[in-house]
Amino acid sequence: MLRIRRLPIDTYPENTAFILRHGNGYSAEHFRALRKIRVTGEGCEILATLALVDDGQIIGDGEIGLGEQAFRRLGLPEGTTVEIAQARQPSSLEFVRRKIDGDSLGDAEIAAVIRDIANHLYSPMEIAAFLVACSGFMSTQETLALTRAMVEVGNHLSWESPLVVDKHCIGGIPGNRTSMIVVPIVAAHGLICPKTSSRAITSPCGTADVMEVLAQVDLTVAQMKSIVAKENAVLAWGGRVNLSPADDVLISVERPLRLDKFEQMVASIISKKVAAGSTHLVIDIPVGPTAKVRTQSDAVRLRKLFEYVARHMGLETKIVFTDGSQPVGRGVGPVLEARDVMAVLRNEPDAPEDLRDHAVALAGHVLDFDPALEGGRGYARALELLASGQALAAMERLIDAQGRNPATPTLGKLQHEVKASATGTVKSIDCERIARIARHAGAPIDQGAGIDLMHKTGAQVRKGDTLYRIYANSEAGLGFACECACESTGYEIE
Amino acid sequence: MLRIRRLPIDTYPENTAFILRHGNGYSAEHFRALRKIRVTGEGCEILATLALVDDGQIIGDGEIGLGEQAFRRLGLPEGTTVEIAQARQPSSLEFVRRKIDGDSLGDAEIAAVIRDIANHLYSPMEIAAFLVACSGFMSTQETLALTRAMVEVGNHLSWESPLVVDKHCIGGIPGNRTSMIVVPIVAAHGLICPKTSSRAITSPCGTADVMEVLAQVDLTVAQMKSIVAKENAVLAWGGRVNLSPADDVLISVERPLRLDKFEQMVASIISKKVAAGSTHLVIDIPVGPTAKVRTQSDAVRLRKLFEYVARHMGLETKIVFTDGSQPVGRGVGPVLEARDVMAVLRNEPDAPEDLRDHAVALAGHVLDFDPALEGGRGYARALELLASGQALAAMERLIDAQGRNPATPTLGKLQHEVKASATGTVKSIDCERIARIARHAGAPIDQGAGIDLMHKTGAQVRKGDTLYRIYANSEAGLGFACECACESTGYEIE
Repeated sequence: MLRIRRLPIDTYPENTAFILRHGNGYSAEHFRALRKIRVTGEGCEILATLALVDDGQIIGDGEIGLGEQAFRRLGLPEGTTVEIAQARQPSSLEFVRRKIDGDSLGDAEIAAVIRDIANHLYSPMEIAAFLVACSGFMSTQETLALTRAMVEVGNHLSWESPLVVDKHCIGGIPGNRTSMIVVPIVAAHGLICPKTSSRAITSPCGTADVMEVLAQVDLTVAQMKSIVAKENAVLAWGGRVNLSPADDVLISVERPLRLDKFEQMVASIISKKVAAGSTHLVIDIPVGPTAKVRTQSDAVRLRKLFEYVARHMGLETKIVFTDGSQPVGRGVGPVLEARDVMAVLRNEPDAPEDLRDHAVALAGHVLDFDPALEGGRGYARALELLASGQALAAMERLIDAQGRNPATPTLGKLQHEVKASATGTVKSIDCERIARIARHAGAPIDQGAGIDLMHKTGAQVRKGDTLYRIYANSEAGLGFACECACESTGYEIE
Repeated sequence: MLRIRRLPIDTYPENTAFILRHGNGYSAEHFRALRKIRVTGEGCEILATLALVDDGQIIGDGEIGLGEQAFRRLGLPEGTTVEIAQARQPSSLEFVRRKIDGDSLGDAEIAAVIRDIANHLYSPMEIAAFLVACSGFMSTQETLALTRAMVEVGNHLSWESPLVVDKHCIGGIPGNRTSMIVVPIVAAHGLICPKTSSRAITSPCGTADVMEVLAQVDLTVAQMKSIVAKENAVLAWGGRVNLSPADDVLISVERPLRLDKFEQMVASIISKKVAAGSTHLVIDIPVGPTAKVRTQSDAVRLRKLFEYVARHMGLETKIVFTDGSQPVGRGVGPVLEARDVMAVLRNEPDAPEDLRDHAVALAGHVLDFDPALEGGRGYARALELLASGQALAAMERLIDAQGRNPATPTLGKLQHEVKASATGTVKSIDCERIARIARHAGAPIDQGAGIDLMHKTGAQVRKGDTLYRIYANSEAGLGFACECACESTGYEIE
């Protein structure tokens, strides 16, 4: 029996437990082989990675130190006595091994894996094994089972409306911040659109990061409900709402490994939308040589998978293929993208046309779900709501309702211009490269960091013209970004 | 710039670095997204997982705490100033991603991955991704490249003899401790046989664990060389010699995931034998329903892979298929297996016959490598060396040369007998189950823990007869083992 002591050590995302190597009555060497222990007390239980301490100042005899994550997840007060034992591997790992061996898994097997993952019983290594095994082959039925299992372990939102619309982009295109234009258009029309978005994990910017430049996004379910009741919509960060805790864990491994398989993408997106209470969903699939989806046949395969899973989950979908051949808009990074979005909503003459056109087309598809707009009249209505300023007014109300940011962050103090090395036509812009440079500059944590593109494909440039400007607030960030741009600018000129 | 402080915290196998969350000049939140940092100073560099500390008592302002592993691997003294930066992922991860996508990798690509793994640049999650991706498909050429890459990053031993023999079993059969009989027979004959063995990771016992019951096994290369010069052979723990550091890292992920793919097994075994300076190798592949290799066709596939890789690495091999239908000998666990081995070497009348026959057959194959024994006379010679006591004498000299254990550990104080639940014939014994029970009892860390089998397949038993006895030194261990035996004894009686 050991007494809990809370150690102010943050080992995100893992649970860590600290015990003295010697003299605690347990043979610490015993545990070292597997490194993972089970901590149990008063009916609560967690698995934790074990760290052995050789200094009684850090952790005393008869104590077990729990890092921040472990302490919070176990949920027992300091001083509670707990027992530790060598962790047995979760029994669902047997299914992961079968998947590695090439088997298809049944619904109950996938549900067991997802339950254990949501309960933090899997280590990152075990999660990676599951994800990579699924990457090898996953049947449509397995994808559906994965989606259903992810919905089952999370929270569910419900809205008092038979028509709850949403719009989702699979990502991968820098600057493609259409949600922040689509949502106010749809809200202005009067449809219910409670949108939750993610923050960037490996991209330079998520919609939540951009919205946060203007307003609070870390909202409780109660706050979301009251905002939607008043404004028809909300643009909140999805992390707080715990819609798909299993997916949050999976993503923490998928992103660093840059796993982007269609099956996992479909399960992730559809599960979150179902849990969020959406009934009708427009999905934007950008297709382009440096996008997530690179060929028309891949796009069709992904569409079919989305349609199959969504249909079986009772979600009506409309899949839209869009131009993913280059970044959308001009800015890449929270402050820069917020600037572009507001320029479109304000109908400024130099607002980025591609962002506006793209957003209006998607808003049109969402509005088409409204029976009152039968016959494909959504597009015209979207255009009207934007041009008339009603969308802007809806956005301003939304910002006020969520909590307007009193001091909007500004653009990075440091900048560097990347110049054309030759005269000619911009033939292509590499989305991955642009994202990486913006990320190196510090986006999204440094909100003012990012890239402002001066030229898009088709433009004529002369040698020495500025292709884009990199912004950052730290010398290190600017240095990393310039180094990355030096390696390759991402622009092809011919 | 931060000053190194050594923190007495063991986070095996990972490097961990601890910094104050606030007030150190670095934005700790910045690093949290990826959790992995690069620590550099005086030309040295490590990657480490970052833990954020909120208590100045544990780590001070301007300091970076390095756990045991990180401190040792960086190799700089306390107080040295170092810089930290967000770790970039090793560039070879691009090849891992290609492998996940189903590509075959070239020799240079595999070499780059293995180099980065040996340098501890991969996290367990990234290693799992590589291993599982390779599990899906790996060409013969890739397996050879993997083997070669693993040899290249490790130490190499060399021996002044054109004929350096070895014998290796792929494992999976409890009690199958033939090496400790084969090596003294071969040494008594006069062949050079510098054997390095592993400790158990997930099995109840490795050869190094059993040999350690009798003698020191943690030997330096210099010690090994001087023992071999005198005794022709050695039975050392391979971990100290660093023959295949990449494989040691891979195994730390393979074992907990129980990945046991042929390709990885072949690369692991052949790379270690080549690095150890062997020229001729007998490989024992037990085949049985609960062994690692379960069908004859799998056995043939594995043999061909061993032969292909060994031939290209310049190693002569003889592959032997053996009976892997049940445990070999009677004891399972370090003390019990040492007892069986010595009983065979001492020609005791009740020594386990299957262990003896098995060992003599393998020793015969090894002796066949001696040109002086042409025409398959190795078997008769092995039998003669065992029966005459020359093998025992060689073993006693080997034990003395390595350092005889002055107080050999004894059998566990606690015991429990598992009884037959019916009268009939023992039809089968499940190797996996027996291994698991012995492991739960505490083997190999508790050297006296394990299982003593009273009956093998084919035996007639009556209801209530003891099938086997479980030994342990801790109540917890005995409890776990009994619980596991209760679930299923591993014996099938009909």
